[in-house]
Formats: sequence, structure tokens, C-alpha cells
Amino acid sequence: MLIIRAQYGQEAFYAVLEGETAYPLRGLPYETLEKDGRALPLAKLRLLAPVQPSKVVAVGLNYLDHIKEMNDPMPDEPVIFLKPPSAVIGPEEAIVRPKRSSRVDYEAEIAAVIGKRCKGLSYDQAKEAIFGFTCCNDVTARDLQPIDGQWTRAKGFDTFAPIGPVINTQLDPANLTIRSILNGRVCQDGHTNMMMRDPYDLVAFASSVMTLEPGDVVTLGTPEGVGPMQAGDIIEIEIQGIGVLRNSVRDEA
Amino acid sequence: MLIIRAQYGQEAFYAVLEGETAYPLRGLPYETLEKDGRALPLAKLRLLAPVQPSKVVAVGLNYLDHIKEMNDPMPDEPVIFLKPPSAVIGPEEAIVRPKRSSRVDYEAEIAAVIGKRCKGLSYDQAKEAIFGFTCCNDVTARDLQPIDGQWTRAKGFDTFAPIGPVINTQLDPANLTIRSILNGRVCQDGHTNMMMRDPYDLVAFASSVMTLEPGDVVTLGTPEGVGPMQAGDIIEIEIQGIGVLRNSVRDEA
Repeated sequence: MLIIRAQYGQEAFYAVLEGETAYPLRGLPYETLEKDGRALPLAKLRLLAPVQPSKVVAVGLNYLDHIKEMNDPMPDEPVIFLKPPSAVIGPEEAIVRPKRSSRVDYEAEIAAVIGKRCKGLSYDQAKEAIFGFTCCNDVTARDLQPIDGQWTRAKGFDTFAPIGPVINTQLDPANLTIRSILNGRVCQDGHTNMMMRDPYDLVAFASSVMTLEPGDVVTLGTPEGVGPMQAGDIIEIEIQGIGVLRNSVRDEA
Repeated sequence: MLIIRAQYGQEAFYAVLEGETAYPLRGLPYETLEKDGRALPLAKLRLLAPVQPSKVVAVGLNYLDHIKEMNDPMPDEPVIFLKPPSAVIGPEEAIVRPKRSSRVDYEAEIAAVIGKRCKGLSYDQAKEAIFGFTCCNDVTARDLQPIDGQWTRAKGFDTFAPIGPVINTQLDPANLTIRSILNGRVCQDGHTNMMMRDPYDLVAFASSVMTLEPGDVVTLGTPEGVGPMQAGDIIEIEIQGIGVLRNSVRDEA
């Protein structure tokens, strides 16, 4: 099943997407999949980020090829960081390059969406707790990472967490192509089978630290090939079985 | 004015505190200070954290004495990190030492509570955007900080952000004593006039990165004297004009 969140006139809702038709739900998809009876053409809707997370937990350095590309040591345990809810944007919204940075990179990531409040999950419980998977662009002001040491500012600016376009609730994340495409040119061409730790392992790890809430997002690292974006660019994150998360890029006014 | 959030039976509300009497508000204090007509004795209430933040932005290394104690270089710009909303607890709740850590420290901090949605604030606008000040204990698994490099896990466990007991909306933060007291012994004995950057400067900085929301918290660094807590300890954060934030400590079950 594919879940979207969309705006239709003044109204915003979650919906089940079947082909080109959206069936709005009566509530949050983690709580009910009951449809409200309407069938709306996708073309009439504006897609929003399909989540409203209380937190976005991100895992650094989970693809061996990207660790090599960044000259980072391989961590013994997953390294996590947080992106603030204020950074989340939906499909087609603009990523804004802040004045303070001279290099803003895309990072294609598959992200797990949490379906229920949970803490201290086992591997198998993590499977149960995941509602589905979506695409995330872990936008990063690369030049600010070494200045701060902490990645919060570099990865926390408004618009630095594009998420979407859909949540696929029946996806096996083990064996998917994951790509970033800048102005039509493939820049990252990875595969989830290159992850050092799989999504269930990482969600279980995150839940060993923090209580996760429905709608929270755990992003699972990026493969090699990250690079900068300029104003006017179009960046697409494409994951097999999910679709294409497409955003424009502009400079801060 | 002193603002609390409290539980009374099954009900939770924000309230104005005058002496030993709480006057519940009709809504969020950022939206209305209209009282609902009741006057409840403080002794009948359980205090909750006086905020429900969408994010807790924390500033590292803002007191010169603490920078020296940690052997850290002095940053040219503030270094920010995030504590997740899931870490927030109120007065009298227990701080839980996770099994994964063998050293969990207290860090006394004064914290600004944001009163309105804001972005890109000037210094003077930051003054306007702050609703008031409260106490925060930036609890830290000290042994995990160097392992991860990123501070998110070390500072992000459930219960690692005690906040309270009140928000003082009319406090000048420039000239206040700030102390931590472990089992009755003063461990940190600092003063806000030792901050390298003042609260307005830091809130303006945070808002240059992220949109801040009403109820968001910006914690402003800790003075020297941090140290570990053990199961059974009582830790108090005391700030002049705010009061005492008191928490017990226990080990993860």
C-alpha cells in the first residue's frame, strides 16, 4: 500500500494512493486506514511530506563506499544524529541554500517511518514497529560539518530534510536501487544491499536510545557519490518501489 | 510571572503560579494568559515539564571555565546540537542511567523558552521572541561522547532533558547564579555573567539556522564543575529567580 499526505484546497490529509487516485483517510495512517469515501485525482492534489515527525533520527556512515569517500573511520556502533522537524519539506518544495554555506550537498537515503510508540526494540520487534519506507534527502552544508564538529547545524537548516513522495508499507528494503539524479544526471547509483547495517538493526539501535513515536523517521545513510547543488538545480532521489522525491534548489533571499 | 505546567487528577494544564496557588490557563501560555477561574493549591498538583517542545536546541561550550575543564578549543561560532523531545522530563521524575553508559553527568543550564514562531531574528527580535527562562539539566553520557563524535546519543537518551520547575517570564538572564547540587553538595557554582555569548545572541543564532516554534527550548551551556551521578542520587539545578529543578537518578532496569 502507498500512503501519501496531500493538500486539497485548504484541507490536508493522509490518503491511500492507488494508481492516479487518492483515497483520503479519516485520521493518521498509524491509527486508522479507514477511507472517508472520497476518491480524488492525484493531479488535483499538492503532495506534502508523508510524515509529521516529532524527530528525524539519522544514521551516519552506513554504506561502506560512502565511508571511504568521506575518509571517515568505520564506526563500531551506528552514529546517530537528529534533523529537526523544522527542516522537513515535501516533494516539489525548494531546498534553500543558506548564505552561511558555500557548499550544500544532496544525500540520497531510504528512511523508515515508525508506526507505533516504541522503545528498546529487538530486531524482530523493529520489523513490526516500522510502518513503511520512504525517500529522504539528507541535505548537508558540507563546509559547516568540520567547522562545528557536530553535524546539527550543517544538516539542520530549514528545508534540509525533503521527504516523500509516498510511504510504501509493503516494501522489503533489503534489495533496492537508490539513486540521486541532479538535473537529469545520475550522481549516486547505490543499492541498499550495500548497507553495513540493515534497517531493522538501525531502528532497533535508535530505539535503544530514544522512545520513537508514530510518524518519526529513521534515515538509514547514504551511498557514495554525494555532491553539491546550486541555485536552479533539480535534485531527485529515486528508490525502487517508492518513487521519485523531486525538489528544486534556490539561494536564501 | 511564573508559569508552570501541572497534572491534577487526569487533567494537565498550564497555569500561573502565585505563591502556593496555581491559576490554570485556558490554553498554551504563548497564546493566552486567560485564567479559567480556578485557584488550586500547588500541593495538590504534580508539576510537569513547563514546555512541550518540538525541539530542544542546545549550545555547547558557552562558559569559558567549562571549555577549559573539557580541554576543548574555543569555537568561533556557537556549536549547536539537538536533544529530542522524547528526552524531556519534569521535576521529580527519575533520570535513568542507560546500561550502555558507565558515566552519566549532570550539566546545569539556563534555558530560553521561545514564545512565537520565528526565523532569522536580530538580537533585539530575539529578546522579543523569548517567552521566559527555566532550568535544564543537560544530562550527558560522558563516555559515549568521544566514541560517537556526534553528541546526539550521549545527550539524547530518554530522561536526559529534565526541564523546570517554572518559566519566569520577567527575568533578566544577565546576572544570575546557576548551581548544581548533588545530594546536598554544591558541584557547579557558576554565574550567567560568565557566558561567552548571551541568551539573545544565542537564540538569534539558533534562529538563523532553524525556524523556532512556541515552546521550543534553547539551552545555553553549562559552567564548570560537571560530574557523574549514580543510582539513588538526587540532583538539583538551582538558578536565581527560577528555583530548583530536582530529579532522582536510577539505573535502567
